[in-house]
This record gives sequence, structure tokens and C-alpha cells, in this order.
Amino acid sequence: MKFNNDYKIGKNVTLGKNVRIGDGTVIYDNVEISDNVIITNNCIIGEPLNDYYTNSKYTNPKTSIGKNSLIRSHSIIYAGSTFGPYFSTGHRVTIREKTRMGEHCRVGTLCDLQGDSVFGDYCSLHSNVHIGQKSKIGNYVFIFPYVVFTNDPTPPSEICIGPSIGDYSLIATGSLLMPGVKIGDQCLIGAGAVVTKDVDDYSLMLGTPAKRICDVREIDSREKRGNKHYPWMYNFKRGMPWEKVGYKRWLTR
Amino acid sequence: MKFNNDYKIGKNVTLGKNVRIGDGTVIYDNVEISDNVIITNNCIIGEPLNDYYTNSKYTNPKTSIGKNSLIRSHSIIYAGSTFGPYFSTGHRVTIREKTRMGEHCRVGTLCDLQGDSVFGDYCSLHSNVHIGQKSKIGNYVFIFPYVVFTNDPTPPSEICIGPSIGDYSLIATGSLLMPGVKIGDQCLIGAGAVVTKDVDDYSLMLGTPAKRICDVREIDSREKRGNKHYPWMYNFKRGMPWEKVGYKRWLTR
Amino acid sequence: MKFNNDYKIGKNVTLGKNVRIGDGTVIYDNVEISDNVIITNNCIIGEPLNDYYTNSKYTNPKTSIGKNSLIRSHSIIYAGSTFGPYFSTGHRVTIREKTRMGEHCRVGTLCDLQGDSVFGDYCSLHSNVHIGQKSKIGNYVFIFPYVVFTNDPTPPSEICIGPSIGDYSLIATGSLLMPGVKIGDQCLIGAGAVVTKDVDDYSLMLGTPAKRICDVREIDSREKRGNKHYPWMYNFKRGMPWEKVGYKRWLTR
Repeated sequence: MKFNNDYKIGKNVTLGKNVRIGDGTVIYDNVEISDNVIITNNCIIGEPLNDYYTNSKYTNPKTSIGKNSLIRSHSIIYAGSTFGPYFSTGHRVTIREKTRMGEHCRVGTLCDLQGDSVFGDYCSLHSNVHIGQKSKIGNYVFIFPYVVFTNDPTPPSEICIGPSIGDYSLIATGSLLMPGVKIGDQCLIGAGAVVTKDVDDYSLMLGTPAKRICDVREIDSREKRGNKHYPWMYNFKRGMPWEKVGYKRWLTR
Repeated sequence: MKFNNDYKIGKNVTLGKNVRIGDGTVIYDNVEISDNVIITNNCIIGEPLNDYYTNSKYTNPKTSIGKNSLIRSHSIIYAGSTFGPYFSTGHRVTIREKTRMGEHCRVGTLCDLQGDSVFGDYCSLHSNVHIGQKSKIGNYVFIFPYVVFTNDPTPPSEICIGPSIGDYSLIATGSLLMPGVKIGDQCLIGAGAVVTKDVDDYSLMLGTPAKRICDVREIDSREKRGNKHYPWMYNFKRGMPWEKVGYKRWLTR
Repeated sequence: MKFNNDYKIGKNVTLGKNVRIGDGTVIYDNVEISDNVIITNNCIIGEPLNDYYTNSKYTNPKTSIGKNSLIRSHSIIYAGSTFGPYFSTGHRVTIREKTRMGEHCRVGTLCDLQGDSVFGDYCSLHSNVHIGQKSKIGNYVFIFPYVVFTNDPTPPSEICIGPSIGDYSLIATGSLLMPGVKIGDQCLIGAGAVVTKDVDDYSLMLGTPAKRICDVREIDSREKRGNKHYPWMYNFKRGMPWEKVGYKRWLTR
């Protein structure tokens, strides 16, 4: 019932095979949608930039959605971004221009991505994450609800330096990352932490301001008694590229 | 002007007497809407689960909205949930499948309920509350803006244990509840607290991590000099079942 | 492509010259829209108050949008508010009744303003700010993402006393303001702070509960070595009334 061909489509829009577009969705000019993509109802894809309202010669920058992506209802994706294959979103996502995402990235309900940021592959943003401009996120990074990436060290100013996050790191619920902090690989930033300084690989950080508590590899598993939980890739595989063979074998593929 | 019969309705939808449905709203299959319910504009009721997009034999689970409910605009309620009478929502609410709510529950603007959770009667969620799966909330519970209920103790993992909250407890603005914490009856979790351990009945908890400050019954009233504010039921009645007779007489009804 | 005259408009709506209204937008009764205003798609302007659903004699209070304003998609503005010239919003903003804003105010994506509040001129609310009722905000105030203004000191109660903020103050990301706190002029409330007491002019406040760290005029500039950053008006001008002449000369205009 979602797909009654009751949508609007701009100029120079490319639709791959087997694309489905929901009712009430609008796709603006110069959007490229690959095979098997589902865009559900009431979305805006290729939302024009601010210039659109005032410049009669405005041209929409190119937007690209990779194959097998699923974009849920009421999401707004500005023109000028690129998403790899198997991209998916929750509802009411807002993604501004110059966002670049690798493959298999997920962006949860109500996330607000301010654009001009780069994400690797298999990044998972849970609900209501706010990513300021000029952020850099590695591969296999999980970001949990109400996390905010900030970028202005002395507000208001013209400085804009976003945080950067290494591969396999986890940013837990409600934590705040201060402008320009560099978080290493395989870190766990605990819930509600305020990260004010750079963080070494494998660090568990807690508190306000966040302090290093231990190496994440010391944290016990709650699932398998006597085992350690981190590196988590040996203990979690759902939706990961090593889902079928396990992380160990996948590494040597 | 909201109700021009410009909505869509699926199969096997039951509408009670005097139901009003706003323009642009879509009601999917197998939704039961009781008497005097108002669903305003641009809502989605009975949103199909993920399987809908891939399974040609998909059947929508049953959704039930109790009598005298009011659902405000742009709200999305997934199929497979049950709401008691006098349910109400703000705008842009998202409620996932397997949510069960008692009567007179209120869910504020932008709330994001991940589903598979149980709420008692007279629960009041203010704006922008996030409830992770497997949460249990008692009766007469108030949850204030930007509170998050988490459920994975060692992210990412396959463990999912939500918090539980006893009757008459209050969870103030911006507090985070860690996975599986059990909060007793009549507690007050202060603004910005991070609750990492179980909490006894009548506790005031503050800080990161939250510590017990005192018994809530020691807190002075700001309205009536020389009185105590808690148990709050003796001092607050708006919208409560004891609104007309007072809590004391209501208890002995 | 946004403006195909596919909108709905109520009674006694005044449209100035050169007003553009996007598809899917609804404007209810008694709304006054000044010259050169752009309201993009799927907005609701003059959303009726609760009484609308039950009172057959309901009359919508007056709503006024100043000239040269830009309201982005999916925003909901309740009836009974006034916005000065050059007002702008992000997407999915919710603004309740009895909100009064001066000129050049900006309200970011997902902001939730509960109404009955007063804002001066040139206030800038970034994404996802929550302003409880009875708040007072001065002029040239910046409020960053996920800030919450609370108003009930002993929840739940019938007391409603919002925070007040002096001119030129900055409320950084994720900070919480407790009910009724008075923040002076030129303050900087740091990210994640929980402000529980009144704050003197020029204070930098950090932590939970927030403590005074220093005078903001002691904070070094990150842009100009050897200089101080605050008062910020000497170092930041984008979008400000002193943009062309500088703050010093503007003061003596």
C-alpha cells in the first residue's frame, strides 16, 4: 500500500532496476539511485541547498544512493552526498550535503548529520545521533543514541574541527565528543562521557570529563563466563561481513 | 480543516464510532481503532514491519488503539502494538512493534520507543524520550525530556536487558538508565544522572554515576511552606485518576 | 519543484508580497505572513490548540511571521505566536503557542519549543534544543544541540519557572538548565554542564553540578594567537548586525 506511484521526480534522475519509491516522496534533480533501492513514503531525496531559494540559476549537486539501500519514511537527504551499497535509514533522518558513506552504513531514526563528513564501511548510528560538520568516522564504528559530535572549540567562531574515530570503536549513549578530539581504534566511550582529549587505542573512557578506566580487553563477557568481550568482533557478528565465517577466518580470507 | 477524508485505509481496519482521521494519514491492515479516537494529519498507523519489503506473503500483525485516544500529526506507530483507552501522543512520535501500554498513557513529541516494552497505566513520557527494547515501566511513572533507557551492557552484543521502573517513580530530564537497572517505587532520578545500579524505593539519585542523596520524603515542597512534596500524589492531581477526590480518598475508593 | 501551489489555506490568512508556499503545507485560520517569506513543503503554520478538537466554537489565535523569513520542511508552528523579520528554521521544528521571538532568530532542525517563552533578537538555536515553558532568552544568545531548559523544580508539580538567559550568552551542547536559574550576560555554559544555581555575568561554567571555572575573558583565542576570544562579538560577525562594520563601530552607530 506504500507504493502507488504517487511520488514526484525531478530532472536527470537515474533509477536502477527494481527501484521502489513510496507515496509522497519527492526526488529532486541529479539523483542517481542504484538497483533494488527502496525509498519509502514521504521522503525528500536530493533536497536543494540554501542557494536554491535565491539563485535562479541554481543547479542541484549530484546525489548517489548505492544498490540495495532502504530509506525509511520522512527522511530528508540533501543533494551532494554519496552513499555506498546497502545503506539504510530509520525514520525522519536528516542528512546534509557533502556526506560520504561507505557500504552497509545504517543511520537510525531522527539522526541529524550536518554534512561535510566522511564515514567508512559498516558504520551503525543508532537513533538521534548528531554529527557536526568535518567529522571523520572509520569502519565498523557503532554510535549509540543521543551522542553529539561537536566542532567549535570557542563558540561562536569560524573554526570547525570535527572529531575523528578509529576503526571498530564504540561511542555509547549520550556521550559528547569535544571539537577535534581524535579517538583511536577499538575504543569504548562510556554512556554519558564528555570526551575532551585524544583517546588511545583500546581505551575504555568514562565520566565528565572522560578519564581512561582500563584497556577494553580487560572487560569480561556477560555472555560467556570467563571470556573477555573485546575485541568485540570475535563475539558479535550480526550484520557484519564476517557473519557467516567468523571474524578470525574472515581476517585471513 | 484537518479532516477532509483525504486519508488511506488498508484491509481489515475496524473503526469505532465517532472516529476522526486527518488528511494525509495512512492506516495499514489489521488495525482496530476504538470509539472517539482522533488521529490527526500525516500519521502512519500499523506501519508494516521490515519483512513487508521482502516477503510477498507478509501479513501485518494486529494493532489496537483504545477509545478516546488522540494521536498528533506525523506520528508513526508500527503494527503489532496495543494502547489502552485515553492514549495520547505529541507530534512525530515513533513507536515500534510489540509495545503494550495501559490506559491514559501520554507520549510526547519526538519520543522514540523501540518496541517490545510494557507500560502500565497513566505513564507520562515528555518530549524526546528514548526507550530501548525490553523495558518495563510501572504505573503513574513520569519520564522527562531526553531520558534514554539503554539495554546492551557490552556493546555490541546479543544481550538485550532493558531497565525496569516501579510505580510512581520520576525520571528527570536527560538522565540515562544503564542496561537492566531496576528502579524501585516512588524514586526520583535527578536531571542528568547516569544510573548504573539498582535503586531502592523512595530514593533521590543524583550524579554520574548516580548516588543516593536521601529519601524523597525528606524533600520540601516549594508550593506549601513547611510541607513535604513527596509522595507527590498528595500534592499533584492534574490528569490523575484522583483528580476529583484527592489521592487519600481515591486510595480507599 | 517545491512550489506547485499544492497547499491548503484557512480563513483570514494574510499573505504579503512575494510569499512562496511549498507543496503539502497547511496554513490555518488567522495567520499573517509578511513580504518575501518562504515556507517550504509539508509545514503546518497556525496549528490549532488542543481546544480545536472538542470545542465547536473554537477560534484560532493570531499567528504572525515577519518579513523575509524562511521556514524549512515539516515544521509545525502552533497558532498564537509572533516571529520578527528574518526568522528562519531548520526541518521538523515544533513551536507551541505563545512564543514571541524578535528579529533574525534561527531555530534549528528538530528543536522543540514548548511555548509561552520570550526570545530577543538574533537568537540562534542549533539542532534539537528543548525550551520548556516560561523561559526568557535575551539578545544574541547561542544555544547548541541537545540543550534542555527545564521548569519544574519538584516534578510533578504545578510550579512552572523557566530559566532566563542574559544577552550575548552561550549555552553549549548537551547542557541542562534547572528550573528558574538565571544566567547573566556574556556567560559560557560548557558542554554537558548541569546548571543548578544562578550564574554571574562573564562566567565560564563546567561540570555536574556546574561550577564557575573562570571569567570568560580569560579564555584564549584559537584563531589569533595571543588574543582573547571573549567577548566574542569582537571576533565573530557572521550573520550578526555588525557583520559589515565590526562590533566596535556598530556599538557607536
